[in-house]
Amino acid sequence: MSGLTHIDSAGNARMVDVGGKAETQRVAIAKGAIRMTAATLTAIRDGNAPKGDVLGAARLAGIMAAKKTGELIPLCHPLALDAVNVDFAFVANGLECTATASLTGRTGVEMEALTAVSVALLTVYDMAKALDKGMVIEDIRLIEKRGGKSGTWQASEA
Amino acid sequence: MSGLTHIDSAGNARMVDVGGKAETQRVAIAKGAIRMTAATLTAIRDGNAPKGDVLGAARLAGIMAAKKTGELIPLCHPLALDAVNVDFAFVANGLECTATASLTGRTGVEMEALTAVSVALLTVYDMAKALDKGMVIEDIRLIEKRGGKSGTWQASEA
Amino acid sequence: MSGLTHIDSAGNARMVDVGGKAETQRVAIAKGAIRMTAATLTAIRDGNAPKGDVLGAARLAGIMAAKKTGELIPLCHPLALDAVNVDFAFVANGLECTATASLTGRTGVEMEALTAVSVALLTVYDMAKALDKGMVIEDIRLIEKRGGKSGTWQASEA
Amino acid sequence: MSGLTHIDSAGNARMVDVGGKAETQRVAIAKGAIRMTAATLTAIRDGNAPKGDVLGAARLAGIMAAKKTGELIPLCHPLALDAVNVDFAFVANGLECTATASLTGRTGVEMEALTAVSVALLTVYDMAKALDKGMVIEDIRLIEKRGGKSGTWQASEA
Amino acid sequence: MSGLTHIDSAGNARMVDVGGKAETQRVAIAKGAIRMTAATLTAIRDGNAPKGDVLGAARLAGIMAAKKTGELIPLCHPLALDAVNVDFAFVANGLECTATASLTGRTGVEMEALTAVSVALLTVYDMAKALDKGMVIEDIRLIEKRGGKSGTWQASEA
Amino acid sequence: MSGLTHIDSAGNARMVDVGGKAETQRVAIAKGAIRMTAATLTAIRDGNAPKGDVLGAARLAGIMAAKKTGELIPLCHPLALDAVNVDFAFVANGLECTATASLTGRTGVEMEALTAVSVALLTVYDMAKALDKGMVIEDIRLIEKRGGKSGTWQASEA
Repeated sequence: MSGLTHIDSAGNARMVDVGGKAETQRVAIAKGAIRMTAATLTAIRDGNAPKGDVLGAARLAGIMAAKKTGELIPLCHPLALDAVNVDFAFVANGLECTATASLTGRTGVEMEALTAVSVALLTVYDMAKALDKGMVIEDIRLIEKRGGKSGTWQASEA
Repeated sequence: MSGLTHIDSAGNARMVDVGGKAETQRVAIAKGAIRMTAATLTAIRDGNAPKGDVLGAARLAGIMAAKKTGELIPLCHPLALDAVNVDFAFVANGLECTATASLTGRTGVEMEALTAVSVALLTVYDMAKALDKGMVIEDIRLIEKRGGKSGTWQASEA
Repeated sequence: MSGLTHIDSAGNARMVDVGGKAETQRVAIAKGAIRMTAATLTAIRDGNAPKGDVLGAARLAGIMAAKKTGELIPLCHPLALDAVNVDFAFVANGLECTATASLTGRTGVEMEALTAVSVALLTVYDMAKALDKGMVIEDIRLIEKRGGKSGTWQASEA
Repeated sequence: MSGLTHIDSAGNARMVDVGGKAETQRVAIAKGAIRMTAATLTAIRDGNAPKGDVLGAARLAGIMAAKKTGELIPLCHPLALDAVNVDFAFVANGLECTATASLTGRTGVEMEALTAVSVALLTVYDMAKALDKGMVIEDIRLIEKRGGKSGTWQASEA
Repeated sequence: MSGLTHIDSAGNARMVDVGGKAETQRVAIAKGAIRMTAATLTAIRDGNAPKGDVLGAARLAGIMAAKKTGELIPLCHPLALDAVNVDFAFVANGLECTATASLTGRTGVEMEALTAVSVALLTVYDMAKALDKGMVIEDIRLIEKRGGKSGTWQASEA
Repeated sequence: MSGLTHIDSAGNARMVDVGGKAETQRVAIAKGAIRMTAATLTAIRDGNAPKGDVLGAARLAGIMAAKKTGELIPLCHPLALDAVNVDFAFVANGLECTATASLTGRTGVEMEALTAVSVALLTVYDMAKALDKGMVIEDIRLIEKRGGKSGTWQASEA
């Protein structure tokens, strides 16, 4: 046995059946970052000052992408999320993004939080790429999950 | 002026008008990686041996996501891509993913290649997360773009 | 505090967390209208007589759009609707459209009913615009909602 | 003959074949409004002051919906839009929304502009409905179209 | 070499690059059928008499699905179809469905026509399944394609 | 009365209201086949040997399509499926496909299983059509459903 829950005994991809699981409150928090030049970061911060549009657009894109996770990730379940939210912080050499997803349901929402972070960061890249094509998206990872049979998990670096 | 092409003079997000641009052949190549424990990497490789399903699923998910880029990234144009392909390589501590997108059209396909890489790596995470929730997606970046008015661009690290 | 539930204390857009809410039976009814010339209205009515296709297509488009509300409206929750239905009535200078959406769930379905009406009316416009580009969509509003903590609400004009 | 281009001689809905049409530059401008109480309008304006999120979110939702027009309106063609943009103005008793869509292609973009306006206004409703469920969306109409065989059309009230 | 254009030399799925192909006029016609009891067929025909809704809904569903082909079939290109239409005929033991798709472009539209037929027939099943769960969808096949480098192809049974 | 649950007393298409139904465990199994020449079948089998990509891609496409059923079939409810899986078997003159869908919910999942089979078979067609445009998709039917008020149903030929 491979230990991979999405691979059946014949080696085929499969969707895990969550029908027998209890509906519990699930939460997942993910983070990621985008590294850029100081000039690009300043342009985003200043462009951001009056209207907040770069980060505002990226936040919305992340939220909307989380709702599409079951469409994007082949073996993810379609989920009726309770909430998903996305935040940005300015850090030394770029932006850090945090997403939190929650659900009252039968399966975890780790992929929803990770997808929100990924698409929010891709949106920052898109909106600033005319200035700097060398931006790098990095460190997309799960920080914490709560709920479900396996209970709470926290990243060692959290 | 902010230099951000997606922000108008009032600070509002806007879609760049590509109507005046010529239709040229555009190509973009992006890369990214996912870092994991040796045990998880072995499980993917072995699970992969008979049927190729983890990487096969991730490749397809990346290709399908590239086709949805205009839906995911708020200010991207919907594009009739000529092709998009996704490949994986086993590296020291994980997997490296490369995506190539191409178009005969009026705008570049950088976001399509970057989106393909991001969703392919998220799919690997999803399919192996029962083994290892600590996997980290990293180094998602543009490697090269060709075509269009701005011509060829290559990442310095490429 | 702004009183806007979708704006957090820092002024950022956010999705309201419905995780703590009870699952109750929710219903929402919305209406709207499209105003057109008598000649266009006659063409729709006559085109409608044998096969019902203009209004039939608009009804289906409204139902299908209601199911996409969580995809269209950035901060709406994805919902597993119990039902949504759309009806048209011929009125003096055009058509009136009514949509009813219902859900057993944690959040209201006002946006689903309003989205159904909007897209049904846009579909009428599309199917008759070769005759009359001057049609006007008007008076899209919530008529009634029932269920949830805030209980029943009715429009004063209803 | 009914004069309805989307109805064939048997009365069935059909998609107009644009294969024989020339690729020309097409533009469409649509407008619409949302009427609300003074208190709600003030909350949006103030909530808008620091971060622009209500109108920022509505603008993005309108742009993204325009890209989905071919998915929402049954007989619309899927189009690779050159651009679509959405603007808001504060008026006496609410907000006025204007959308402009453009395409180098074989069919007009009236529906894209009208869909952008409709979904942008629905998003305003969604984000302010906790304050005021009685808001009314009104006067969604085409203002102008240019390009294509039928040339320029302007609304009489424009 | 396998002869399968969607499999590369390493056995991986890939999207065929159409970038070098000329834009030509492409047409594809597909057919399929649904077999049902005489009682079910009568109910559809009668239910169909006044308003045409079963077949009207199925026609629209087929048209809308054709526009989603690039989203459903992993290695299909997203296409800006010129037209797609769907028709039904009553036959001895059920209904026959014909779909025609056309495009001015770089790749064929066989999959669009086949997808339209498949989803139109699934919609008939859905709308009549309360009467008869034993209906069988059969004989979905390409009848003819025209255009492109390989030119015209016709099914031998056509 | 027509007996067609999706047609109201005025002959209009409508979505059945499942609000009053109990949440029970629902399962549906559907089958279908694709008939092809021996040479094509061999190419798929051989192309399949090293990496499994034709059938691997078709399985994933079927799973992903099942999750989109509520989007494709106009009057289907959007459902948060517990699981859906797709399998292929090599038979005399082609491939047989079986899909199983399950849900804890208020409505059956017959359409999800049938949609999975249909799109999986269309994907096989797409990936092998360069070899053989004459393949025929046939015998798509429900084999069994369990759960809900109407209980278990089995196809007579099962």
